[in-house]
Amino acid sequence: VPAIDDDARADLDDLLDQVLAGRRRALARVLTTVEDGDPERLRHVVGRLHPLGGTARILGITGSPGVGKSTLTNAVAAHLRSLDRTVGVIAVDPSSPFSGGALLGDRVRMQGHHADEGVYIRSMAARGHLGGLSLATPQAVMVLDAAGFDDVVVETVGVGQSEVEVAATADTTVVVMAPGMGDSIQAAKAGVLEVADVFAVNKADQSGAGKLESELRGMLEMGHAAGAVGGEGTWWPPIVRTVAVRGEGIPELVAAIDEHGDHLAATGRADDLRVRRAEQVVAQLVLDRVRQRVAGDGDAADALAAASRQVADRSLDPYAAADRVLDMLDHRARDGA
Amino acid sequence: VPAIDDDARADLDDLLDQVLAGRRRALARVLTTVEDGDPERLRHVVGRLHPLGGTARILGITGSPGVGKSTLTNAVAAHLRSLDRTVGVIAVDPSSPFSGGALLGDRVRMQGHHADEGVYIRSMAARGHLGGLSLATPQAVMVLDAAGFDDVVVETVGVGQSEVEVAATADTTVVVMAPGMGDSIQAAKAGVLEVADVFAVNKADQSGAGKLESELRGMLEMGHAAGAVGGEGTWWPPIVRTVAVRGEGIPELVAAIDEHGDHLAATGRADDLRVRRAEQVVAQLVLDRVRQRVAGDGDAADALAAASRQVADRSLDPYAAADRVLDMLDHRARDGA
Repeated sequence: VPAIDDDARADLDDLLDQVLAGRRRALARVLTTVEDGDPERLRHVVGRLHPLGGTARILGITGSPGVGKSTLTNAVAAHLRSLDRTVGVIAVDPSSPFSGGALLGDRVRMQGHHADEGVYIRSMAARGHLGGLSLATPQAVMVLDAAGFDDVVVETVGVGQSEVEVAATADTTVVVMAPGMGDSIQAAKAGVLEVADVFAVNKADQSGAGKLESELRGMLEMGHAAGAVGGEGTWWPPIVRTVAVRGEGIPELVAAIDEHGDHLAATGRADDLRVRRAEQVVAQLVLDRVRQRVAGDGDAADALAAASRQVADRSLDPYAAADRVLDMLDHRARDGA
Repeated sequence: VPAIDDDARADLDDLLDQVLAGRRRALARVLTTVEDGDPERLRHVVGRLHPLGGTARILGITGSPGVGKSTLTNAVAAHLRSLDRTVGVIAVDPSSPFSGGALLGDRVRMQGHHADEGVYIRSMAARGHLGGLSLATPQAVMVLDAAGFDDVVVETVGVGQSEVEVAATADTTVVVMAPGMGDSIQAAKAGVLEVADVFAVNKADQSGAGKLESELRGMLEMGHAAGAVGGEGTWWPPIVRTVAVRGEGIPELVAAIDEHGDHLAATGRADDLRVRRAEQVVAQLVLDRVRQRVAGDGDAADALAAASRQVADRSLDPYAAADRVLDMLDHRARDGA
């Protein structure tokens, strides 16, 4: 793998120095590097910043579109600021490359915070990143962690598998729901019940909030009966009612998050989570490297393309095709010995 | 990798014979095998069924929760049946393992179709599958294709990255939207504009349907200006208004799908899609095999766990950790030579 050249590394080092000195524009540029996913630039960023991190509390906020996640995230950030904590937000946004959703979102959302150096909000798309959001997001978290933010919030749309995985690696994951977003079957489909440490029933002033809350309680009871929720010494996810647009319930929500943090510390789960998060990142990087090897090795890429054409015309099955590509990679590993 | 034993293979072969003879119960059991993701059983299923497929038309139907995707999918299936086409539906459902959402969903949704042998609806979760839905879904499609269905519909919640990827490999992808699901920024966030071949504005009898449609048209124009939509000889995604609960607009939607199919055939894009779909599956299987190697090799798994602990305590950075695991795998490849 070719390393970046000396000039590029010096520029990048200068940028990283500025990030560590608290310069926001440099932070934005480093996060763009993470988003773009150039492996060698990323490797350099991670190599320098990773040793400096490990102090931030990492929060996940997830939920379906329309439940008011962004508003709630902003309200939580504002409340954490009032407690004199600095807050970095990564809003994971599987946007269209042409919609400009991420940029637009940032501009809209920075309103109310833009004069405050203690809060930083960044939307992230997965453009260009080989491993997608599941690789880019933990690395963006690492950057904000190293930059010294007390809390790093990862906001994700919680219906996709990779987004759920991302949220699941936070210290504390808040699942946001809202009344009127569909019946109980829809709620069961959300697929996020098992990752929730705290539930926020947002838009709690709207009709149906009580019904939603009792459905949630019922589902937790069901999960408890199935052994998946609230065993002895484990955490029973509290349900907090919020009206994020008016800031109602936000102090209670942050208190519930704090309580979950105390639980993690008391039970030693906090360290487990850190190791699990690290393991997920390392495993992703291993797969990303394999992906790069296939794409970067002419013969392996040709083997993949040729085998795929045979799979498409049904003269080869996908497993046999995968074997061919793997054999090619193993052959390379042997030659490279 | 240990192969399945003779008895298990004979049982599986018997099951596959039944699937090819059109037996629904056997089909359900084979799809459970796909969902469970046991690599050797899957390999055998794929090896036998893959050569028999390649005839089905593959449709993707995607959209945010609450837009009425399931109802629309059911209505489309009913209309295709009225045209004397057989229809298999895979509803990709990132459900909680304890919510039972998938099963419940099937029971609810089979209403109206359960006496008809020409339609088969199956919800799928990703439980146990190493590669997740992005691996399980194309294999489930392959099973329904080989079982002889004329149309295979993949219904996904279209906000997650992997779900978008799944939808993007269909011959024709329908993106379902509905009024009142959030403002235009929310729509831009959906991240599905670039995969849409046909838009359905569902719940078109509700207020806001006209506004949503003109926002969509505006976004397509923006995409066109950016070079991402509707270049010369390419497809301009039509917008079809539907009220799926009453079946309104469904014949028009199916007509738009047919037209897109004609466009694919006329431009040779249909074959490209098949190769691309195959390439995605093969690449996923390669990564899945690498994942299995790490998990299944005691030393590699130990190396991953040990390196991850060091990453967590900041004495090693994630890239260096990934290098260690990769070196271990390469070493194995050399030893295995």
